[in-house]
Parts: sequence; structure tokens; C-alpha cells
Amino acid sequence: MMNNLQLNTEGRLKHFLTIEGLSKGLLTEILDLAESFINPIDGRIKTFPLLRGKSIVNLFFENSTRTRTTFELAAKRLSADVLSMSIATSSTSKGESLLDTIRNLEAMYVDMFVVRHGISGAAHFIAEHVGPQVSVINAGDGQHAHPTQAMLDMFTIRRMKKDFSPLKVAIVGDILHSRVARSNIQALNTLGVAEVRVIAPKTLLPAQVETMGVSVSHNLADGLKDIDVIIMLRLQKERMTAALLPSENEYFKAFGLTPERLKLAKPDAIVMHPGPINRGVEIASSVADGEQSVILDQVSNGIAVRMAIMAMAMQWQGGA
Amino acid sequence: MMNNLQLNTEGRLKHFLTIEGLSKGLLTEILDLAESFINPIDGRIKTFPLLRGKSIVNLFFENSTRTRTTFELAAKRLSADVLSMSIATSSTSKGESLLDTIRNLEAMYVDMFVVRHGISGAAHFIAEHVGPQVSVINAGDGQHAHPTQAMLDMFTIRRMKKDFSPLKVAIVGDILHSRVARSNIQALNTLGVAEVRVIAPKTLLPAQVETMGVSVSHNLADGLKDIDVIIMLRLQKERMTAALLPSENEYFKAFGLTPERLKLAKPDAIVMHPGPINRGVEIASSVADGEQSVILDQVSNGIAVRMAIMAMAMQWQGGA
Amino acid sequence: MMNNLQLNTEGRLKHFLTIEGLSKGLLTEILDLAESFINPIDGRIKTFPLLRGKSIVNLFFENSTRTRTTFELAAKRLSADVLSMSIATSSTSKGESLLDTIRNLEAMYVDMFVVRHGISGAAHFIAEHVGPQVSVINAGDGQHAHPTQAMLDMFTIRRMKKDFSPLKVAIVGDILHSRVARSNIQALNTLGVAEVRVIAPKTLLPAQVETMGVSVSHNLADGLKDIDVIIMLRLQKERMTAALLPSENEYFKAFGLTPERLKLAKPDAIVMHPGPINRGVEIASSVADGEQSVILDQVSNGIAVRMAIMAMAMQWQGGA
Repeated sequence: MMNNLQLNTEGRLKHFLTIEGLSKGLLTEILDLAESFINPIDGRIKTFPLLRGKSIVNLFFENSTRTRTTFELAAKRLSADVLSMSIATSSTSKGESLLDTIRNLEAMYVDMFVVRHGISGAAHFIAEHVGPQVSVINAGDGQHAHPTQAMLDMFTIRRMKKDFSPLKVAIVGDILHSRVARSNIQALNTLGVAEVRVIAPKTLLPAQVETMGVSVSHNLADGLKDIDVIIMLRLQKERMTAALLPSENEYFKAFGLTPERLKLAKPDAIVMHPGPINRGVEIASSVADGEQSVILDQVSNGIAVRMAIMAMAMQWQGGA
Repeated sequence: MMNNLQLNTEGRLKHFLTIEGLSKGLLTEILDLAESFINPIDGRIKTFPLLRGKSIVNLFFENSTRTRTTFELAAKRLSADVLSMSIATSSTSKGESLLDTIRNLEAMYVDMFVVRHGISGAAHFIAEHVGPQVSVINAGDGQHAHPTQAMLDMFTIRRMKKDFSPLKVAIVGDILHSRVARSNIQALNTLGVAEVRVIAPKTLLPAQVETMGVSVSHNLADGLKDIDVIIMLRLQKERMTAALLPSENEYFKAFGLTPERLKLAKPDAIVMHPGPINRGVEIASSVADGEQSVILDQVSNGIAVRMAIMAMAMQWQGGA
Repeated sequence: MMNNLQLNTEGRLKHFLTIEGLSKGLLTEILDLAESFINPIDGRIKTFPLLRGKSIVNLFFENSTRTRTTFELAAKRLSADVLSMSIATSSTSKGESLLDTIRNLEAMYVDMFVVRHGISGAAHFIAEHVGPQVSVINAGDGQHAHPTQAMLDMFTIRRMKKDFSPLKVAIVGDILHSRVARSNIQALNTLGVAEVRVIAPKTLLPAQVETMGVSVSHNLADGLKDIDVIIMLRLQKERMTAALLPSENEYFKAFGLTPERLKLAKPDAIVMHPGPINRGVEIASSVADGEQSVILDQVSNGIAVRMAIMAMAMQWQGGA
């Protein structure tokens, strides 16, 4: 059902809400198009006229300077007009419902909504209600999905490791509450890696996590064995007040990525993190800033990948 | 005096502050120019280079995402540079006066101010003090006027009904505090409709309202008889705490537009509302979303109409 | 050391952090380039494609609508993409450090940061940590420097007085806490005026102020004698609660610029103020709005001067 909503009748991308239900071919098409936006000589991104005259609205019900900024820059690089709205969910302006807000913006000839919302399913809900000419991109909904983050992670992995099939990928931290983890697990399995391994304390794992197509470890030192790619998750500090975790210090002792632990993975393993990082909580500063870290590459890659997704959702045919 | 301020020495639009004093010819010119911006084939609005190199500042002392957004989109469609400033009246930045703020922005070569302010006469005050090269557009001032809303309402009516002269138009709700009502009454009378009828409880009508060129009804069922166009007003909920109204529920019973009541108007009557709507307070959801509703058309039309007003105020000669 | 950081190996401007250490030749080059952006016929500024495709981020940790707006307008006149971020220092988003914020934005291919921060040295700190392709412009850091304000002041003086060498310039007010005063003193001395005279109560002067290359007066009437240019400083009202000053009223009596006092300067003296002005505190309204005031010219000139600094920092060769 989800995938039906995301694709048009010709099977082309229409909305981008979740990795679930998207084919390996389509994910690869996104990665290839993103690659084409990067100048091979200087690694920078030029401006393309693909979405000239299109209006894109960033609807951020949750604050996220980083994600909003990359979407704004990506939209500008595609020559679109972009408006960013920060809407505090608590004070929905004048009591208007989400749906009325969307309908009104749609009536202003908005072509695309980029939606960030604290409630799982918000982007999906909006996509169900917009007209056929409008696309919706999920920029993070509750604990459900963060599919553009997953795609920029895949792009970063492919750039570093070329081929997905032999890779063993560890995702470390709060799997239970992480939309990044959920989307990454789906993308990695769709692209066909050898193994996705989640490493977390039991309190931060979903029930029956194995059904998501992952192996499980509760010990970081053991879990990192033979790993090619380490995806660290951000520790949401509010989990600790919720008594799921003892303290920042104890968490770091058990699950923080230190230089010593990093040595337990493959020598050429790369270290990833969706940001913003908590230095000394889930990751040591020396690892975050170290040679194996590709954390800032992820940020750079976010622009090209979001450009690709936006262009494809607006039915721009990459090959044509 | 007002009209002198709005027109230049050749009688062309210079500022757009109020409908009062503007001729039927000038209002019609705005409607015609707005029409020319809409692509007759797909109903969308293209980008025009009419205001390229011009700087427009949206000065919003009152928050209004919808109005600000349509002005921003309209300015971008005219290729202008647009800056939006939200200025809380309570915390006037560093204690600077409104006039000093304006003078400073004017010194930055700003060509146009779009002003929304909680105090009646604010836009007029600004227009009196800017230099001859600067235009001021009133985007709503206190309870005084909301002339661009009135013009998009007129545009919507003309698109649906073609000719103003036979029309009977009802305006329903809080006439007393509504700048939308005031501007609409003036526009409808200037354009020469057959009748403007206000329908409201006595506590929500100005004293001697008949002098505004309207007929009066205190009963919605009676008042809707023979009506071609129904303009519902938003109920400001703070009126109820001020004891002017009993409760939302009682208001809806007496003055809410239900499907049953809508049948008392002409069969092809259209339903309008400036938004945001209070579903179940002044209007039933089924009416707001029903076939006779043109509420979202009003939003769409707001862009073309605001483009026309901005282009004319910058002395763009539509016919040349 | 500062100047090494500001200049590249060829001695061209790379960052613009402070006037200190910049040569007379380089300051003059900025003024000349700014002059070239102003249309000599109508005094307005056209759009230039010099920074097309470049991304500029305004990072404002301190609120300043005026400075931010002129930087935005200047960036747009140079055809750059510009994003403005207001970051409250108190609530650093998600606890991310300043350096991580900068590194992340830099990874998004940002070409230039315009930084306003309440802490002295913030822009300098950022410039030390960005990559070789990124420029940093100081838009005011603590009580340290406000070099673009100083340059627009120099530009305004040169436009009015042509030659710096014979000029006697008074700076009046809170020298102790003023980054504007500090940068102006440096610029005036570098450009070689005949005298810089600071006029202030002892409590508002730095210790050993004479070492900055100024003469000192504690009496406004005496101090204005023979003066060509009067730069009034804004009185920060919080100084009064800090017991450095008696009251607004007493301050105005002693150091407010009145029409009577203005007559004590040269007959063709000009009056400057960085804004926003406190009418009746440091300056009488009739002086601020009078014939000798160039306060609004300063605002206008800010755009051309900031364009020049931004273009030069991006290695645009004015003469080429």
C-alpha cells in the first residue's frame, strides 16, 4: 500500500515517504542521479535548471536546522523557489488543522512539500491528501522513517566501498527509537549487503528485531568483528530520564565508539553518524574527527542525494 | 485624502491602502491584469520579469503565515527580491520606532513595503512618510482594511459569476471587528452589485451600519434568501471571552452555515471565507469542503491578484 | 597574526575580521570597489553576477535585523544564494558546539560565513577552523570589532569630504564598550586623518585610551571645536543599570548632541551614527533628522561596502 502511494502508475517515484517497498533498481537510480550532480573534478555541485519555476515548501513541524538547510540548498541548486516554514506543533497557528494548512498551501500552486513531523505517518497522511500534481518528501516522521538520510548514507557507503554485496554493516545505539536505523536497515537489505548487525542494549531494541532482517549483538566489542561500515546513532538524552539508560558515562563505557574498539572492526572500516554527534557519549571525539570517519562526507552527500530525490519526484527523467 | 495618497498625479495606483476612494475602473484594471497572469490552459501562474531587480520587504507586525506566503510567492513570480520580517509589536527591536525602522529599510533601497499591523492606519502612516520612489501595500491593518483580500474576493466572484451588477452578496458574521468585511463592502459597492447584505447578531454590527451601503439581517435563514454569493467571516474566538457572544456552539446554531441553510440561498450560490476557517463554528465542514465552496479558489487567486497590485503600484503599465 | 589570517599568501583579502593590520591600500581598494557598484546617475545599486552559484550563510548568534538585512541584500545584489540563520546562543540547538555547526555547514559547500556573535573573537575563531575555500566576514563580535560598519563609515566620510588627510573626527559616547568605536579608530588612523578625538565620560573610556592613537576630551562642548566629522555612538541602556551612568536625562544633558552643540563644530561638519538611534538620549531628533546628518546615507552605503568586501574575500579581482 505504501509503495503504491509512492509510485505513479508507471512505477516512477512520485512521493518519497519510506524505503519500504522501493526496489533495488529505484534506489540505485537515485544514487546514480545524485552522482551525476557532483562535479568529478572539484567534488562540488553546480546549479541545474531542472526545477525552475517550481515552488517547494519546507514544512518543519520539528526543528532541524541541518536537514532544513540541506533541503533548501538542494532546492536552490535545482533552481526551484523554496519557502521554509517552521511550525511549532504546540501552537498550530490560529488552530488550523494540518490538513487545512496543506490544502491552503496546495492552493498556492506549491509543487512539493518537504515534511518533518514528530508524529509517525505525518508525511504519508499528507501524501494521501494532496492533488496529483504535488509531491511529498518525508524529511523524518516520528520514529517511523527518515528515508533521505538513509539514501545519503547509502550514497556515502557506495562512494567509499563501491559494491554493497560483500559488506557487513553495524548499526550501533538506540535502534528502538531511531527512524534513521529503521530506514537504513531497509535500504541496506534492499541493496543487498551481506549482513546488517544491530548492536544495542536490550532496552533499546524493538521486540523481535530479527524480523527486520538483522543479526543482533548486545556487546560492542564482539559486534564489531568483521564489520566494514559502522553507523553510530545519536543518543537521545531524554531516554535516560525515561530510565531506559543508566547515565551518559555508563553508556559511553558500554556502547561508545572509542579508538580501541574501532580497531576491532576491519582495518578499513568507515564510521558514520547522522549528526549532530554527542562527543563523549556515543562516540569519542578522536573517532568522530579521525581518518576513518566519513561523518562530514555524509553531510556533503546529503545535498546531491536530496537533489536527486526531488528531481525524480517531480518526474524529471534522469536519462532523457 | 486617502485616495490622493494612493494615486500619483496621473491618477495611477501608487500605494494600495484601502478600497475607499478607488474607482470602478481602477479596480477592474487590477482584476484584468490578474487574469492575464493566469495561464488559460492549465490555470497556473508563470514567472514574469516585471519586477526584476526590485526589493520588496514584507513587514509583518502581526503573524499571518497564509498572507505572508502568498505575498512572497507573488513577489517571486514577478522576479523581485523579497525579504520577510516578522516584527513582534511587543518587543520592538532595541526600542526603535516604526518610522525609524521604515526610514532605515528605505535607505537600503527597498522599493516596496507590504505591511501587516494590528493598528488601524499603520500602512497609511507608513505611506505618508516614505519617499516618492517607494510603494506601500496594506496587507491588513487593525480593524480598518484588508484591501488585497477584498480584491481576491472580487476576482473570485467575477470568475464564477462574470457580471457584478445582478449579484446579491451576503456577508455573515462579525462585521463589527472585521477589516475583511469593511473592504469587501466597499469593493462590492464600487463594482456595483445589486445588494450587499450583512447578516449578524446586533452585538457584532457597527452602529449605523446602513450608512456603509448595506441592508441588514439578524437572521441567517431569512437573510440568505435570493443570495448569489455568501462571504462567511472568521469568528475571532476572543470575542466570546469579551462577552459579545454566548458560546461557539450557540453561535453555530444561530449563524453557522450548514448544508440546510445553504439551500435557502440561490441554488448556484457560492460560499466564500477568507480563512483560516473554524470548522463547526462559523461553517460546517461539509459546506466548507462542498461543491459550492470556492474557499481554496480564493487562496489560489490571491497570488495573481497580489501580483497585479504589486506590478501596478510599481508603475508597470499593463497594456504597454 | 590577525592580519596573516585575514590575507592569503598573495596579500589579498581572504577573511574580513578586523581593521587591525589591514593596509591603507587595501582599505582604499574596498572603498573604490564599493564606489563602482553605485550607479553614478541615480545612486542606486544594480545586480552583478560576481558571486553567482556561491552559497553565503548569515550566522547571527546576536539579533540584528539591520545588519543582517543589509548583508542579505548585498549578497542578492551579487547574485549569491544566501541563507540566514538566527541562532540563540542560550539554546544551542541540540547541544551542538559552534565548531561542529560550522563544520557541518562547511560540508554543505557553504562558501562564506557572515558571523555576528556576542563573544569577542568568535569570527576569528571560526576563520581559524574553516577550510581554505571558505571566507569569514565579521559582522560584529562582542566588544571587539565591527569592521564592515567602520568601512561603511569611511565610505560615507570619503563621499562627503573627499580627502581624509585634513579631517578631525570626533567619536562621542561609550567608547569603552563599543566595537564600532574600536574599528573606526583603527580605520581612521590607517586612512590617515589629521586627528581622532574621543569624547566621553571617564567611566566610558578604556584605560590608556591614548595608546589607540586618539586625543581625549571629557567635555562635549570643548571637544567639538574644529571637528569635521562627528560619530555619535549608541548608548547601551543596560550600562545605566550597571551604575556606569546616572540617567538617560543626565547623559543627554552632558553628552547629547543638540543643535546648539553642533554649532560648536565646523559649519560643514557631518553627523554620523551607526544606529539604531536613541532619540533624546545621545542625539536630539532635530540633529538626527537635520541637514548635517548623514545617518541614512550610512545605511545606504552599507550595501555597496558589504558587496565590495564579500566580492574581494571571494577573490574577485576588481580590476580584472
